[in-house]
Amino acid sequence: MGGDYGPHVTVPSVIEYLRQDQETDIVLVGIQAAIEAELRALNVALSPRLRIHPASEVVGMDESPALALRNKKDSSMRVSINLVKSGEAHACVSAGNTGALLATSRFVLKTIPGIDRPALAVVLPTIFGHTYVLDLGANINCTAEHLLQFGVMGATLVSSVENIPEPTIGLLNIGEEDIKGNDVVKQAAELFRTSDLNFYGNVEGNDIYKGTTNVVVCDGFVGNVALKTSEGLAQMLASYLREEFKRNLLTKLAGVVAMPVINAFKRRVDHRQYNGASLLGLRGIVIKSHGSADKVAFCSAIKRAVDEVRGGMIRQLGEHVELLERNTQHLSANSSSVN
Amino acid sequence: MGGDYGPHVTVPSVIEYLRQDQETDIVLVGIQAAIEAELRALNVALSPRLRIHPASEVVGMDESPALALRNKKDSSMRVSINLVKSGEAHACVSAGNTGALLATSRFVLKTIPGIDRPALAVVLPTIFGHTYVLDLGANINCTAEHLLQFGVMGATLVSSVENIPEPTIGLLNIGEEDIKGNDVVKQAAELFRTSDLNFYGNVEGNDIYKGTTNVVVCDGFVGNVALKTSEGLAQMLASYLREEFKRNLLTKLAGVVAMPVINAFKRRVDHRQYNGASLLGLRGIVIKSHGSADKVAFCSAIKRAVDEVRGGMIRQLGEHVELLERNTQHLSANSSSVN
Repeated sequence: MGGDYGPHVTVPSVIEYLRQDQETDIVLVGIQAAIEAELRALNVALSPRLRIHPASEVVGMDESPALALRNKKDSSMRVSINLVKSGEAHACVSAGNTGALLATSRFVLKTIPGIDRPALAVVLPTIFGHTYVLDLGANINCTAEHLLQFGVMGATLVSSVENIPEPTIGLLNIGEEDIKGNDVVKQAAELFRTSDLNFYGNVEGNDIYKGTTNVVVCDGFVGNVALKTSEGLAQMLASYLREEFKRNLLTKLAGVVAMPVINAFKRRVDHRQYNGASLLGLRGIVIKSHGSADKVAFCSAIKRAVDEVRGGMIRQLGEHVELLERNTQHLSANSSSVN
Repeated sequence: MGGDYGPHVTVPSVIEYLRQDQETDIVLVGIQAAIEAELRALNVALSPRLRIHPASEVVGMDESPALALRNKKDSSMRVSINLVKSGEAHACVSAGNTGALLATSRFVLKTIPGIDRPALAVVLPTIFGHTYVLDLGANINCTAEHLLQFGVMGATLVSSVENIPEPTIGLLNIGEEDIKGNDVVKQAAELFRTSDLNFYGNVEGNDIYKGTTNVVVCDGFVGNVALKTSEGLAQMLASYLREEFKRNLLTKLAGVVAMPVINAFKRRVDHRQYNGASLLGLRGIVIKSHGSADKVAFCSAIKRAVDEVRGGMIRQLGEHVELLERNTQHLSANSSSVN
């Protein structure tokens, strides 16, 4: 029901996704009449692969997460997450209110033991592939331990979804040297170094798009600024390029000739293929689609959820966190015996 | 003497600058023989407009700022800043070691009363113009008061250089609403609101390149990540575009046709025209050029210094900080009388 367009985008997107992936079933959760109207318009019938689970309420895009959590027990969002908790669904995908999705997922599903806070992870393109960046805004004030936990979550996401056994982790900083950065980042680097994770070391902002590491870890404030700054720059460059091609008859002609190349370039940087942020650290898979997602973008978010389910992300995360905790206790036991 | 290429770039750049601007004189500070060799190669004679002030040492690009400050009293960097302090030069432009330049400038010139720490400001392009962002990495752990001071410095820079009387200031945050962000940012927003500054409110990462405000204020960690992430994204997009045009004979042909447009686009986003970060808050003008600057880029840094001198930036900054302090004292006097 969520996002800027509600079922008008999510329902057709689900139909499209089911066509592409014959091994996934989808439960549409929300106002039954609204969903049925969309299905009728698309001339699609319900089936064992496509069911409706009714929910009588909808969380507004600007509603307070706390109020949504307290008052809307039968919202499409809450009911979807309940289905993940009960095991009736393997994952929840929502284009709705981010804060409410975070608060409700955390309340209903709880975090995996050893994880203090869920984090938001996104995939970003790099020169030769892509990289995973977290946190993107779920956690504003982070300790070094939180950053370490983000590292475990990010590495688990990559190993389960991409099948890369020991993903490299970079800690986002303002220089590569150990002495750089604020205290939290310096402490986090220490924790990473003594962990079993494949820690690359500090990385800088440009390393994100260089693809220096498989995972880039940062606090939610910095991650959010980096992501939104990127969006702004991409929009500005696109607008400049458009203007230059529209300058006069000659440049317009050049634009016609270059169109297939420009389109290929656009397809390659099309942010819709990267839609879908993973809420990591919960005892269940929850994917947040951008509110403005269209049919294509929402399909990417569904695919992300399916990939995490198939990769056994939650089980792996539980194992990795347990391993991390055991080693950390081992370390603290060691250091106390030294004291 | 500094930067990746030393006098081999700075000297020809200075010659070029002197040709463009007949009202500026330049003092070349550094190893006399090295500078003279460059001048000979360019067949340029010294004159009242172009002098050499010898300095026997050079600060290395990777040298510890503390050691450079303590041990290299006759470095080109130190001597240049001394010339600013003594009034023999109106500004210092350096492509050298950033940390050493910051430490030495602060030690020699001191900060303006009311300013705790100098900040690094850069100009970035926006869809319809450009914007000033600070701090870019000089200050990692900032208080709300520091962010307020950055606001005064940024606004003064814009009003003196761009002749915009009351520049708008945005506080970089992860959402526009007051409740967003970490404690420091929330407190800073309060300080800005009660100040005389033209405070727009919170801005997000994408607002930088949208040009929502004339000035964007953030701590040095966040600013550095935003800037370097932008560099990385721009490089990735350029590499994608190159690849698409080189894909086959047809796309190469399209590339030839589109070349003038692509070149116009490149000129427009050429980062060399934005070279030169201002060290703000000092009792003198110091500009840091990128170490990798070429002749064109270094000229931009010189021009930035000249613009700040002509705009009376230091005098204005002194006045603005005094005003801010008076109003802040006024405010605290008010609030204590309320208590």
